Formats: sequence, C-alpha cells, structure tokens
Amino acid sequence: MAKTMNLGFLGCGNIGGGVYHLLTEMHDEILEREGIDIQIRRALVKSIAEARTDIPKAFMTENADDVLLDPSIDIVCEFMGGEQPAASFMKRALENGKTVVTANKMALALNWPALQAAAADHGAGLYYEASVGGVIPVIRSLTVSLDADKIDQVMGIVNGTTNYILTQMTQQGRSYADVLAEAQKLGLAEPDPTADVEGYDAAYKLSILSSIAFHTRVPYDRIHREGIASVTPDDIAYGREMGYTLKLLAIGKRTDDTVEVRVHPTFLPNAHPLARVDGSLNAIYIHGRYCQDMMLQGRGAGDKPTASAICGDILYAAKHLENPTVPSFKNTDTPDSDITFSDNWTCRFFIRLDAADTPGVLGRVAGAFSGKNISIASMLQRPAADGRAQIILITHEANECAVQEALASLNPEFVKVESMIRVEN
Amino acid sequence: MAKTMNLGFLGCGNIGGGVYHLLTEMHDEILEREGIDIQIRRALVKSIAEARTDIPKAFMTENADDVLLDPSIDIVCEFMGGEQPAASFMKRALENGKTVVTANKMALALNWPALQAAAADHGAGLYYEASVGGVIPVIRSLTVSLDADKIDQVMGIVNGTTNYILTQMTQQGRSYADVLAEAQKLGLAEPDPTADVEGYDAAYKLSILSSIAFHTRVPYDRIHREGIASVTPDDIAYGREMGYTLKLLAIGKRTDDTVEVRVHPTFLPNAHPLARVDGSLNAIYIHGRYCQDMMLQGRGAGDKPTASAICGDILYAAKHLENPTVPSFKNTDTPDSDITFSDNWTCRFFIRLDAADTPGVLGRVAGAFSGKNISIASMLQRPAADGRAQIILITHEANECAVQEALASLNPEFVKVESMIRVEN
Repeated sequence: MAKTMNLGFLGCGNIGGGVYHLLTEMHDEILEREGIDIQIRRALVKSIAEARTDIPKAFMTENADDVLLDPSIDIVCEFMGGEQPAASFMKRALENGKTVVTANKMALALNWPALQAAAADHGAGLYYEASVGGVIPVIRSLTVSLDADKIDQVMGIVNGTTNYILTQMTQQGRSYADVLAEAQKLGLAEPDPTADVEGYDAAYKLSILSSIAFHTRVPYDRIHREGIASVTPDDIAYGREMGYTLKLLAIGKRTDDTVEVRVHPTFLPNAHPLARVDGSLNAIYIHGRYCQDMMLQGRGAGDKPTASAICGDILYAAKHLENPTVPSFKNTDTPDSDITFSDNWTCRFFIRLDAADTPGVLGRVAGAFSGKNISIASMLQRPAADGRAQIILITHEANECAVQEALASLNPEFVKVESMIRVEN
Repeated sequence: MAKTMNLGFLGCGNIGGGVYHLLTEMHDEILEREGIDIQIRRALVKSIAEARTDIPKAFMTENADDVLLDPSIDIVCEFMGGEQPAASFMKRALENGKTVVTANKMALALNWPALQAAAADHGAGLYYEASVGGVIPVIRSLTVSLDADKIDQVMGIVNGTTNYILTQMTQQGRSYADVLAEAQKLGLAEPDPTADVEGYDAAYKLSILSSIAFHTRVPYDRIHREGIASVTPDDIAYGREMGYTLKLLAIGKRTDDTVEVRVHPTFLPNAHPLARVDGSLNAIYIHGRYCQDMMLQGRGAGDKPTASAICGDILYAAKHLENPTVPSFKNTDTPDSDITFSDNWTCRFFIRLDAADTPGVLGRVAGAFSGKNISIASMLQRPAADGRAQIILITHEANECAVQEALASLNPEFVKVESMIRVEN
C-alpha cells in the first residue's frame, strides 16, 4: 500500500525548481520502489507573476500560511535562503507538527537550538543534509555511520566559490580580483561575494558540521573566521614551490575538553587528499579514533546535486515521520560548560616577510621567533625590488599566540609582515 | 531511561576483538549520549583455550546455540568470515528474531536473498555497512542519502591487498611476484592470496554494492572477474607514460535495462580521483543523474576502522529494532527479468603487442582493428630484443567483443598479444 506524502515548498527558485524536477521525474520509480507517493501541494513564492515558468502556477502561493498551516502537508521543504523569514517559517512549520527539510546553513546555524526544540516539542523531524557540502552525505555519515566513533578532526572545503577562485589563482597565477571578477561574470560568485569570500558561508557550515562531529553545540560566533581576499598569487606560488597547496578550509578539532573551530586560508601538503579537490568541488576530511582518516567529496552546489541530497532527506523523513532522528547532543544556545573554545591552536605557519636586504636582518627575524620558542622548518630567501628581500618561512608546530607575538615584535622599518598562512598536515 | 541492548558475537578474532574494545572504551559515552547501554553477552569462539587473551573468557562459548538461541540477545554480530557456517548461523539468528550485523561480504553476497527473507519474515534487521569498503559509509550513502537519485555508475577500489600490490609495483617498478611475497611477509596478503588477487573478494563486494546502487539484485555469478596476477611492470610503466594509473576496479554500470558488472585491472587517467587512492586505502566513486560525481574514501580494512563501521550499524540497529531498514529491491536468487546482464561493454582498451619488426606488421595490426570498427586514439612503438618491437595502443571507445575478435584475428607468428587492459574515464 502506497503511503502518500504531501510536501510544501518555501521558495521555488534554483534549488526548489531542482527538487521539483527530481521529484516529478522520479515520482513513479520512487512510488514503485519505496511505496511512497510524493505529492507537491504548495510552493510559496515572492511573486507568482514573476515565478519560474517551468513549474505549474497552480502549485504556487504568495501566502506562507498556505504552506505552514495546511493540515494536509506532512513535510515542509525550505529553499528561501537567508536567515529570515526562513528560520521563523521553519519554526512555525515545526510547531505545526510538520517535518522540515532545509539546505539553509545560515538559518540553521543561527537558529538551530530553537528549531530543534520546536521539532522535539512537536514530534517533528528536522533534516539538513544539503546544508553542508551539498550532495556529500557528511551529516548522515557522522550521525549514523560514525555514531559510535570518536571524531577528533573535521576539515572541509565547503565553499565552492572560494575553491574555484583559489584553484584558478593557483593554476594560472592570476590575482584574486581578476579571478573574482571572472567568477562573477560566469555566475560562480555573487554580485556581492562577501558571504563566500569572507568565509561566512564556510563558518555557518562549520558550526553545523563540528556540532555533529563533536557531539556538542558549536555556536557560529565561536568560530575564528578569515576570508581569501588578501591572498596573493605570490603566496600561492611560494607555497607551491615548498610543496603546499592553498585552500580555504573549515577546520574543527576536538580533544577531551577543548574545541577549536576556524575558517581561514590554509596550506596543505600537495599529497593531502584535500589538496587535490579542485574547482567547485567540495570535500570533507574526517579523522577519528577508530575510523582513522576518511574523505568524502562531491558537488557542493548546483540544483541537481543539492536536489539529490534534499530528496534523500525527504524520503528518509517520509519513512521516519513517527520516529525522527534527533541530534545526540544538547542543542542549546549556550555550549556545554565542560568545553573550552580555544583561539590558541597549534599548527605550522607559512610566513612571508619583506625585509631590507641588509646584514643582520635575518638575525632579527630568527631572534624574534626563537625568543617565542618557535622553530623554523624551512626557509627561502629571494631578492626583491629596491634592494629588499622576500623571506619565506615555514615553522614547525607552534602556537598561534606565540606566532602573532613574534610577528608583532618585528620592527616594520626593517621587516614587514606580508602574510601569515596556517599550514595543516 | 537507558535502553539495554544485548549483543552476541559469532567469532572473536581480529574484527570481533576490535568491536569488543571499541564498545568497551566507548560504553559510557554511548550510554550518556545515546541512552543505549550496550552489553556484550556471549562470544562464540572455536576454542576458549586458544582464544585471544585480551577479552574475558567469561563471555566465551564454543556452542553457537548459546548465542543463537539466547532469548536475551537482541543483536548478533557475525565476525567469522567465510561462507559457512557464518551464513547458516546468521539465518538461524534472524529466524529467532535477532537483528544481525555482519562485515562478511562472501556469506552475504552468496546468501543474501535467503538472509533478507529470514529477516523480513521475523521482523529482524540485517546490516552490513562494513562488508564493502570497510569504514567507508557507502551502503548507507546509497540506501539513504542517494535514495531518491538514479545511480548509473559505481566504480570502486574495494580490495586493499591488491591496491597495495599495484601501488608498490607502480611506485617501485617491481614485479607482481616480488611485491606479493613482501605483502605476505608483512601480513598484508594472506598465505593463500587467491581471494584477493584473483578478484573474488572485490566481486563479492561489487555484487552487494551494485545491487544496492541499481535497486536490482546483481548475483555474484553475473560478475565478470579477472585478477591482477598477470599484470606486469611493463604494462604499468607504458600506461604511466601515456598518462594512466593501473587499479583493480570493481565496476558497475546501469542503463534503463542493462547492467554490466566487472572486476578487472583498469587504467584510469591520472587525474581521476580514484587514480590517487594509494596503498591499502579503499574508495568508491559514484555517478548518478542528480548527484553527478562523488567519491568516498577511507580505510577498507583494519580492526579499528572496521569496528567503527560495525558499531555504527549496531547503534543504528539498536535505535531501529522495531522498524529495520530493508533493501528497496526484490532480493531474490533470480534477478529482475527486465534487466539484461551484458558482457559486451563499451570502454577504451590498452593493448600491448609483441611484433616482428618487419615491414607490414603495423599495417596488419591497423587492419585488424579497423576491420572491427575500432579506432586507435594513441600509439607507442619501442624496439625490443631479437629484432622485435613492442607496440602499445590505446583505442577510442570500442566494444569488448569487437576487441576480443580483433585480437584473436592477429597471426601470433607475427604479432603476439601481451596484454589487454580496459581503460575507464
């Protein structure tokens, strides 16, 4: 006996349209294979007159209540993007006992405790596989397959726009501004690229990812965030010469009582599996006590891959309406009191200095680092214009604060810090 | 309120011991986090006297009925390996209403319909995430996350032993026999390596993987299987020179009405993500109509990674004792009647010939291929000993049968076929 499952859409743009087409094309096969008759009942749009024309207008409404209050709708799929009104609409849907499926990392990261509480209070499900890494099944892998493991590290390329920009800069030696302009022309970057290039998007995703991986709520505002706007082709070229590839990484690490979460440009050894994830691909590297190292890669954006992940959630939700999956941690606004969020992480550092090419300069630099107990693993010096020199260092493992202090102690009259980029293994 | 979940083990060697240690170390955390109190009640071993000493003898029994018939046991975990008695023990456990978790690809691939029927008839669950790709969450990704998608291709490095051997042969130019002997000394290959090097292990896994990916039963005996024993360092070196890396792949492809399933040495372009999966790592590449391309990589063996996957299944089983997951296809001994299994697949071919270095030989070769409508994409000729020449060809897309016929038509007096290796993109 087929089970009918009625869906309501909040938003029906690129992603909503992709989901509509997948569910239409696959309807009969899903019905035959799974015994689930998926029916799209209503879709909230801003303007029916201006809505996409490949979807019947009969579905559409401009009134959110037609989706949120319709008692026949079982599952509400949110495709609006942005924090509001998406988050408040999702909350109302949950409060009406409807299961919610979303790909909206921003609304979820900033409102997760309230949404999860609404789901719990009303016996509804809340699913968000597509919110991190697009079609990559990382949420379900962490919550189900690795449920018995102890994950100590997640490291992800979770923003396709910045990965595209860095890949182009790396392969063609072009400037950030140049590649960004091209990406905007190709529709691969937004007219206002801030959310991507400044790492906000990656930080929302890291908040979700690390909360699940570490079984403790990692609020968005605990994440250290740096974007890629100040990365230069010189940094990338010097890094390559020394065997490293530059990526914007979302990094989460956990020990027993400490969590560090940070989004920043990162050099990886060329042999690292993430170093080879190019273009708009996404990938998430996971390390745990038992699973050891694992990597999942796939399409992080695009209507079809995103629709695939969302529809996987929809089918799972349809099969588990009565016993929805809940996170295995206290999803509260205030993180666990026995967890410390550290800003003084340990890693290696790539440092590029512009120095006066005079006797004693190298000694000053060496002294500044050794004074902070930072030892240098490799070094490169190149003559630059106007009698100056470029000095590139890669340190051994060191503490963030010590490195910051060492750099601040350099006299800018002799040694100017051009860049400092963290290096992960 | 904590829910107690009683486990019985069938076998307690390397994998069973790994699971025992994970569940012991993680017991309190899982209890606190998930509310599940996992208790290992009994473990069947061949000989208590000779059993591993890091696990209390009090658990152990030499009588299978102590596990299979104990009404207090909820979940039976099978770690015996081999087809029998593992399969009949699992069947009896299912018939007694116990959920079964296994990593035994051979017992599962050869007895899946009977086991799944026993599970269905007795309301029990049957889980096998660790049976393919070790810790890689490929079963759950296909059955849940990609459930709404239409997968047309799976391509996997699913046997760590052969991947280790091929990686060593590639990186060091050593012979198969030499590397195999070393792998046996290091414990990376069995004293009788047949199951690995002849591709049996990969074929069992492909039977499971492709059945799930294509939503249709793919019996083991429909899989074309070739091992790596005849691969030479010369083939690998010529392939590298032409931009390809050799891997033993388990390949499944599906169109609307045709499935092709094959295990054989395969050249991949160096840029293919699977080409970079080296050593004992496993990886599975997936392509689908909506998800597009995806790859999951991780540890395919080892007690800890395998235990991680098995314990993920155990926790999932514990949470879904009353509503176990079932495959979305008719799991019968006879495959779907509307599916044809094809042995005449289309791919490119790497062909190495040993030819008399006389005028007209190249013409004969070219004629044999063009007569079968096979066009050649690239060619390499090198002088060999005794006035002979090595000719290496890579074809454009061609049919398997046409290539076989073209090769059979060559006169061995002039042109000897040294090797034929399929090339995938």
